[in-house]
Amino acid sequence: MIKAGVIGGSGYTAGELLRLLAYHPQAEIDFVYSTTNAGKPVTSVHQDLLGEVHLNFTDTINSNVNVVFLCLGHGQSKAFLAANPFSVNTRIIDLGNDFRLESDSLFDGKQFVYGLPELNRKAIKKANYIANPGCFATTIQLALLPLAQKGLLQNDVHINATTGSTGAGVQPSATSHHPWRTGNMSHYKAFEHQHVGEINQSLKQLQSGFESELLFIPNRGDFTRGIFATLYTPLTTDFEEVQHIYKEYYTNEPFVNVTTDSINLKLAVQTNKCFISLEQKGKYLLITSVIDNLVKGASGQAIENMNLMFGLEETTGLKLKPAGF
Amino acid sequence: MIKAGVIGGSGYTAGELLRLLAYHPQAEIDFVYSTTNAGKPVTSVHQDLLGEVHLNFTDTINSNVNVVFLCLGHGQSKAFLAANPFSVNTRIIDLGNDFRLESDSLFDGKQFVYGLPELNRKAIKKANYIANPGCFATTIQLALLPLAQKGLLQNDVHINATTGSTGAGVQPSATSHHPWRTGNMSHYKAFEHQHVGEINQSLKQLQSGFESELLFIPNRGDFTRGIFATLYTPLTTDFEEVQHIYKEYYTNEPFVNVTTDSINLKLAVQTNKCFISLEQKGKYLLITSVIDNLVKGASGQAIENMNLMFGLEETTGLKLKPAGF
Amino acid sequence: MIKAGVIGGSGYTAGELLRLLAYHPQAEIDFVYSTTNAGKPVTSVHQDLLGEVHLNFTDTINSNVNVVFLCLGHGQSKAFLAANPFSVNTRIIDLGNDFRLESDSLFDGKQFVYGLPELNRKAIKKANYIANPGCFATTIQLALLPLAQKGLLQNDVHINATTGSTGAGVQPSATSHHPWRTGNMSHYKAFEHQHVGEINQSLKQLQSGFESELLFIPNRGDFTRGIFATLYTPLTTDFEEVQHIYKEYYTNEPFVNVTTDSINLKLAVQTNKCFISLEQKGKYLLITSVIDNLVKGASGQAIENMNLMFGLEETTGLKLKPAGF
Amino acid sequence: MIKAGVIGGSGYTAGELLRLLAYHPQAEIDFVYSTTNAGKPVTSVHQDLLGEVHLNFTDTINSNVNVVFLCLGHGQSKAFLAANPFSVNTRIIDLGNDFRLESDSLFDGKQFVYGLPELNRKAIKKANYIANPGCFATTIQLALLPLAQKGLLQNDVHINATTGSTGAGVQPSATSHHPWRTGNMSHYKAFEHQHVGEINQSLKQLQSGFESELLFIPNRGDFTRGIFATLYTPLTTDFEEVQHIYKEYYTNEPFVNVTTDSINLKLAVQTNKCFISLEQKGKYLLITSVIDNLVKGASGQAIENMNLMFGLEETTGLKLKPAGF
Repeated sequence: MIKAGVIGGSGYTAGELLRLLAYHPQAEIDFVYSTTNAGKPVTSVHQDLLGEVHLNFTDTINSNVNVVFLCLGHGQSKAFLAANPFSVNTRIIDLGNDFRLESDSLFDGKQFVYGLPELNRKAIKKANYIANPGCFATTIQLALLPLAQKGLLQNDVHINATTGSTGAGVQPSATSHHPWRTGNMSHYKAFEHQHVGEINQSLKQLQSGFESELLFIPNRGDFTRGIFATLYTPLTTDFEEVQHIYKEYYTNEPFVNVTTDSINLKLAVQTNKCFISLEQKGKYLLITSVIDNLVKGASGQAIENMNLMFGLEETTGLKLKPAGF
Repeated sequence: MIKAGVIGGSGYTAGELLRLLAYHPQAEIDFVYSTTNAGKPVTSVHQDLLGEVHLNFTDTINSNVNVVFLCLGHGQSKAFLAANPFSVNTRIIDLGNDFRLESDSLFDGKQFVYGLPELNRKAIKKANYIANPGCFATTIQLALLPLAQKGLLQNDVHINATTGSTGAGVQPSATSHHPWRTGNMSHYKAFEHQHVGEINQSLKQLQSGFESELLFIPNRGDFTRGIFATLYTPLTTDFEEVQHIYKEYYTNEPFVNVTTDSINLKLAVQTNKCFISLEQKGKYLLITSVIDNLVKGASGQAIENMNLMFGLEETTGLKLKPAGF
Repeated sequence: MIKAGVIGGSGYTAGELLRLLAYHPQAEIDFVYSTTNAGKPVTSVHQDLLGEVHLNFTDTINSNVNVVFLCLGHGQSKAFLAANPFSVNTRIIDLGNDFRLESDSLFDGKQFVYGLPELNRKAIKKANYIANPGCFATTIQLALLPLAQKGLLQNDVHINATTGSTGAGVQPSATSHHPWRTGNMSHYKAFEHQHVGEINQSLKQLQSGFESELLFIPNRGDFTRGIFATLYTPLTTDFEEVQHIYKEYYTNEPFVNVTTDSINLKLAVQTNKCFISLEQKGKYLLITSVIDNLVKGASGQAIENMNLMFGLEETTGLKLKPAGF
Repeated sequence: MIKAGVIGGSGYTAGELLRLLAYHPQAEIDFVYSTTNAGKPVTSVHQDLLGEVHLNFTDTINSNVNVVFLCLGHGQSKAFLAANPFSVNTRIIDLGNDFRLESDSLFDGKQFVYGLPELNRKAIKKANYIANPGCFATTIQLALLPLAQKGLLQNDVHINATTGSTGAGVQPSATSHHPWRTGNMSHYKAFEHQHVGEINQSLKQLQSGFESELLFIPNRGDFTRGIFATLYTPLTTDFEEVQHIYKEYYTNEPFVNVTTDSINLKLAVQTNKCFISLEQKGKYLLITSVIDNLVKGASGQAIENMNLMFGLEETTGLKLKPAGF
């Protein structure tokens, strides 16, 4: 059994990791680190795990676990690792954004690999340290990687994506206050979202000359889970060819479905899947991409990376019943 | 024009008061007091009033306004009034629970009248100081007053009522966090809600020997506005008679509708109305009562009380378009 | 008093009209035509109007009313008018899309004027027949008219707009089924929405050489009311100038607010207002525009047109309390 | 592998069954019967199963499957079985209400066992034909069975339960129309719900002299999944003893958790679990019970029954990640 530690155990991505680890057939939760809740039962925060998880939160790490998941606020992982050394045998998966960009990927002798299996599966299998992708970044990259691989991203891409309120985390705030958020919609960080950096990096990895702009408007949606993204860009080859390229790129991918039917956000909710729909609209290619921000966009993908690193079947513990409704 | 001051101007009941005062044909907003936002435009918090309200929040009161509305946290009105004396001509309407019970109703020489017009209209018209009823208390009293007036409350009343998230106020908290509250339901303070006191007081005002129990479960609902209450108690007279009693009690009431059709919460949302439905279920009388917690349950009723105190038509400024959907 | 008839009285836009007419100080509901509900009380369908509207639905028109509102399905107004002649003195306001395009605007000797007051106020005041704009069309035009007037629309406009479920009408369907729609998001008619025609027509009215494309993705949102739209296009003059142009264009408009603060959908819900936010994002101008689809996007604007046609103050009956939450 | 057929394959309970069967390690979907969709891919209706289920709907049954699930409208199972005979070796699990009452339980030589494992596990293991309990009935029985077993139900039980919109099924209707249902609440069939029959039957099975009334108000909630129920009745023994009784009754139950902490609906959503909270309120015992109406309240419990009938571990295929948010 893989012994797993979870750091920052009170938050949403940690909770989702624990829900996945609780039933993972080849991993077990060794400790759940939370300074604010140390000593209390894990189920005092993640109450739905009553009967499944019997640990208390701890403020002491076990530095010899096989894998540790960092579920800290963005920018806090480096400080944590500096202060809390783990065994050289401990694999580390960071769910924050500390190590995603190549310029940040070498830290204290540890080389972090960008953990998007559909892009970097081989490298992930050999890695000891993983930078787990951002949620918007996952949705958008999966929508664009096949084009990039063929060098077909020759123009600006217009991207509009709406995220659920869990994306803002467990800490109550004005824009995640139920009276405000319900029945509402708004945008934030238009054209300036921090995920554009990692998306660009991946696109250039496949299409080195990619120079176009990603014009990205992120929205706050009136739902709790999921990201619904639409993207369009001029077609640079015929639509049949595009379909072929996507089907081929994702042909053996266990978590990505490509279709030309219209899709909706809830297809992906509560699963580790991404659904991608392709449509031709005049001279434009319109791509729709949906994921669950907490699963494929965070904790599910982290488990997927763990599975790959430890030589397990990639879908282990990730055959998740879709929400349906 | 009635010059009105609003104390505690950043909260939800203050916001709703401002929305009502902005279009009230015979009142005007004189000042909006908020220590935390003093100096900022009122529309920096209540952004939907852009173009309608041009004042800044202030930390200075005008002690000579005609009426002041206290929109403070429960238990803070006494301290505020002690520290901030108003002119003897200033009428005061307290939206908190400081003065609702008879034992609390005389403060610093000021006699507060319980401001439920359907119970105390005459006294309100003559009053200078009003204790505005609680939101659950309004919903439940309007459902029971006609029975009490006829001395027909002879048994325990079983009450289940669900409130929207605005009932918890503007301050973000765990149970009003959008990811938690959405798609969820829970109860709190079952059998122990603080509004039972004022309900009992009103029932005894009409039926002095009332001794039965109000078994009341309040729930947190997955919506932002409104209270949906069901109440049942054994029928102590025949159902035709009950209908007659309710229709008679509310015959001239501008804001209460009685029906035997099934009703739903949204009928009352965004209005100052209460809809009451009566049904016989075997030996029981089942009463359904719905209001908007921020309007009839708070700020709308406060305006209604203001109208009565100043000799205006009771519905002035309160002919509000129902939400519909 | 203006005597008003409503055709297609069971639907959402008719319901909203009735809610507005019920309290309109200078209009009264003369009849509500519905073949499916004839003989039943209007409140059997629009139950929230209990106590306010005492009419029954009728299948007989009064051809001498002062104004008639057509709330029929798109494409049914012509057939209705052909079969049901009104007095030459009866003004007609069509909420469908039958007469919006210039090529459709002359019917049976009646010249319909496109009823967007911010574009055609003068013509509306003199008109007898009005084609009330579409909801998406209203949101988008109000966001673009100032640029068009100055001839500044020189490039494609990228538009993403999300509508509430009331936009789909009263008839239950798969995509307005609560279990499906809740927590969900999807798009439809991308780049092909029928409202693009009337938007283009208005832009060309102000900027005759307008030839660029409106790339418009409409989405189904997880809320009941409102349209949230973002639009961007390259800046063709400096941003200060753009702000000045918008402020000037809307300076005397009672229902349009322009700001550079970030805005959200709910500011406009339950009101006849449009909020527009302007931001510079690098070389792009980003415009956010929000309205209530049933009020400014349909029935409120219809009342606004009625007010203008009858020489009333434009805001009569339209000083609506914002929803708040 | 257990070969399973699903009848009435387009509905919500069928969809949920297919989601569970798709990943069940010891069962496989043999056919999905739907007369309306015969010939179309199962994923044309249950689109989230794209990539997992490759069958088409069929209008032909395979009468030799190991188990068949009937997901028909209430009252249609008898007619279906009469017209479509299965092998004597085929086990049948009916998700409708045709066979739940003892008076209905013998049909055409088949003896149906009421499939509530926490009540009838032994009988289920030996059964060939199962009447799967109703959703409200499951929630309420699990809250009351321990008291009944000890003969402690000596008084009326006051029950208020709110269900999500999926409880009304896939067919769009006025009360499941998104604009109406969202932000709304209403009750239906108060004191008269059809599930009271099966609840009473089970309580009498454990406490033969049970004669008190179940006063049950079912509500329509503003969420898609789950049932939130509160029940209270006078305490007939001390509260410590009650806790002990519940803990003992459910000590080996894999899907029932008993706590004295406050709970909320979402703990159970997307799982086959029931969470029960016990509180003393003066002389009353207050019980809160939550389940997912489509899982433990329907399809999950059906799989649980299948597992028991085929000698599998009861939790097989039912270790479902909780929704979280």
